[in-house]
Amino acid sequence: MLTYSLEKNPGSPLYEALYQHIREDILNGNLLPGEKLPSKRALSAHLEISKVTVEAAYEQLLAEGYIRSQEKVGYFVESVPQRSAPAPLPVFPVAQADSCLLDLSANSATGFPFSVWSKLQRGVMLDLNEKLLQPQPNQGAWELRCAIARHLGQFRGMQVDPNHILIGAGTDFLYNLLIQLLGRDKIYAAEEPGYDKIRRIYAAGGVNCISAPMDSRGVLPLDNAQVLHISPSHHFPTGLVTPMDRRTALLQWAAAEKDRYIIEDDYDSEFRFDAHPMPTLQALDRENKVIYMNTFSKTLSSSIRISYMVLPAPLMAQFQQRLGFYSCTVASFEQYTLERFLSLGYFEKHINRMRRAYKALRDQLLQLLRECPHAKRLTVLEQDAGLHFLVKVSTALSDEELESHCLSKGLRIRTLSSYYHGPVPESDRNCLVVSYSGLRKDQLPLLKQLLAQL
Amino acid sequence: MLTYSLEKNPGSPLYEALYQHIREDILNGNLLPGEKLPSKRALSAHLEISKVTVEAAYEQLLAEGYIRSQEKVGYFVESVPQRSAPAPLPVFPVAQADSCLLDLSANSATGFPFSVWSKLQRGVMLDLNEKLLQPQPNQGAWELRCAIARHLGQFRGMQVDPNHILIGAGTDFLYNLLIQLLGRDKIYAAEEPGYDKIRRIYAAGGVNCISAPMDSRGVLPLDNAQVLHISPSHHFPTGLVTPMDRRTALLQWAAAEKDRYIIEDDYDSEFRFDAHPMPTLQALDRENKVIYMNTFSKTLSSSIRISYMVLPAPLMAQFQQRLGFYSCTVASFEQYTLERFLSLGYFEKHINRMRRAYKALRDQLLQLLRECPHAKRLTVLEQDAGLHFLVKVSTALSDEELESHCLSKGLRIRTLSSYYHGPVPESDRNCLVVSYSGLRKDQLPLLKQLLAQL
Repeated sequence: MLTYSLEKNPGSPLYEALYQHIREDILNGNLLPGEKLPSKRALSAHLEISKVTVEAAYEQLLAEGYIRSQEKVGYFVESVPQRSAPAPLPVFPVAQADSCLLDLSANSATGFPFSVWSKLQRGVMLDLNEKLLQPQPNQGAWELRCAIARHLGQFRGMQVDPNHILIGAGTDFLYNLLIQLLGRDKIYAAEEPGYDKIRRIYAAGGVNCISAPMDSRGVLPLDNAQVLHISPSHHFPTGLVTPMDRRTALLQWAAAEKDRYIIEDDYDSEFRFDAHPMPTLQALDRENKVIYMNTFSKTLSSSIRISYMVLPAPLMAQFQQRLGFYSCTVASFEQYTLERFLSLGYFEKHINRMRRAYKALRDQLLQLLRECPHAKRLTVLEQDAGLHFLVKVSTALSDEELESHCLSKGLRIRTLSSYYHGPVPESDRNCLVVSYSGLRKDQLPLLKQLLAQL
Repeated sequence: MLTYSLEKNPGSPLYEALYQHIREDILNGNLLPGEKLPSKRALSAHLEISKVTVEAAYEQLLAEGYIRSQEKVGYFVESVPQRSAPAPLPVFPVAQADSCLLDLSANSATGFPFSVWSKLQRGVMLDLNEKLLQPQPNQGAWELRCAIARHLGQFRGMQVDPNHILIGAGTDFLYNLLIQLLGRDKIYAAEEPGYDKIRRIYAAGGVNCISAPMDSRGVLPLDNAQVLHISPSHHFPTGLVTPMDRRTALLQWAAAEKDRYIIEDDYDSEFRFDAHPMPTLQALDRENKVIYMNTFSKTLSSSIRISYMVLPAPLMAQFQQRLGFYSCTVASFEQYTLERFLSLGYFEKHINRMRRAYKALRDQLLQLLRECPHAKRLTVLEQDAGLHFLVKVSTALSDEELESHCLSKGLRIRTLSSYYHGPVPESDRNCLVVSYSGLRKDQLPLLKQLLAQL
């Protein structure tokens, strides 16, 4: 018969202990489905406890479905999925990325001002306290939206109403919201060549996303798409800046049909080194056709997940009406910290400092390329493209061979053709995309060595 | 003729200043589309600058599409969307929620341990520093996933492999990922009555979401759905705990067809006051059919946006293969802070402290109801449901009238029927859902006053 040593815990009744023991036995498979439990009388005699105690424990087991009762026959163990014996948590190795010595295949922000950020965080906690626990507006904290509007006014010449800003944890999430806002029945188009993740997100979101072909002045207006996702101020990876006449043509394209919209992805605009920032499409738009997006993850740190978009007023009204139930995805601590970082001028200082640092890094890198053994076979293009530049290579290797040859020597780097979805024009072959912002100065000698081995 | 006072800035060439002036005039509408610019020679004479300077400025304007050139005729202003005169940024009032004195319609976490969190944040910044800027695994920081696995082992008796945990900025986002992972072709079912937001998110995500009817033992297995989204350990708003036999039946339902899955939403499980936590479906599942979800937003603070899910191994493999391009949506600062908060035992302390506080608050509230003038017409149900309880009201008012009568006196509160999507059974009418966790002790006298006025 079931034998347990029942020790009464202070504050918890004795039947509770009995219930726990029997339950464990059922879950561990010591009591099997269909097995008959001892009668209440027999068990109370066996364990030398009162019948009321056994009754209460059986009642609880019955109520929770661990046992069933058959009138005048007794209690039976129910069929319960058995728990396997608890094993110690295995130690899992962290998934390893395939190894390389140097990675020039993607940019990552460096130089994050930890001490300033930490100081501001502490201040936010102290000053705002309980306010941080209040439910936050789903578009993001009002104060942060005002700071972003001021920032866009100062640095991009945009006039933005904070009521039209929506803050989210990364652009991935915002793209998903846009699909829900603009509709899955539309055809989306993304730049070709372009940042491949955008197309993948649209595909995962269940929408048809086609290629928007480009010429030397940017994306061409496209009759068989409704939503154009573009980066006119700084195309990735070519660095192309769309001139004013094409901007006008794109806005006219959008205005021509009710359902057409342009998503203007202005990522990285802070780091362009050219002297002539063009007005954004958002600033030129008179027809509520442009959705402006940007992110702090690229300029501050990839681990800060704050992006935002500026919606035309009618779209924001639609968002609130149809999707207003979504909560803001960014912690309020972080929002208020960024608000102070912007408002107190730290962001501007950070950008200016990093711009100088990146420019110096780029110059050193270009110097290194000029002096490397293969210098004659390399032509550097688009030096002002921001945090990457293009290098045309005179080689007989295919682009796949070029990438894997570099990787075999420990250098991860992508070719321009890897950003194509469809066929690659001959002129864009054998072209390396050098994303250098994640490179540390002390890695330059290593790079020099690698280049010599290639 | 165009007249500008060109002041040479140190570090920027003179043509740059001329370019800027003309560009501003075009954007502001001082120069109209089609208007002819003065010839290079005439302008250089007029402004007393070299012809080369004018040439360089015109070249730049040409390249960017602000003007066009007509051979042997001259330069003409292009049609450019004009900038409206910069207006000062208007001051927008923050959108006001309709006013009420007391809100018992939704729970919000209180008692957040600011000083501990702040201390941990500072420590994370100091200790991890550059590590925080590294690209993070898309499932979330490994250390945090290990801490969550340990936590689930200790408090929910679950054996979870950190490799199967995915961290995201709030459950809203995770639901969206699940739609993309499980597919839009499936039929989803959510509890009726239930938390209305879940259905809205599925609808916005473009999937068919039907009602999963319930009886007194929980959700009934449903032949015409593939994905069941349920909270068996603590149904909202009834507080119902699904007993073991129904759990078994639900797992059998899921195992019967290849495409069936259960999303087990275990929100709030930390705050249940009952002594008998049932094993989670995830712990009982042998067939890789259960996706477990939980969030720290409900237990710590709504402004902390960290949720997670535990995927069965085959689903996690699919996620990485098909959706592995998604970045993690939570800032690494926050992830590492939470990791320490869990690992150093602060979370457990916080939960224990809040459990006591909420229990005391609930008891005071129940006392207040017993003593209020309407006590005879009120029956309290489901006192152990966690951070809310139900109050059956004997009244001739409809539920809509009941809600709006309370609101007219300044008390926002929802009825059980407002959580129904379809018809409301008679037995669930006239039942208030009292979500009390956001109530402060000092608001109790106000509540007493309000109750007297109702």
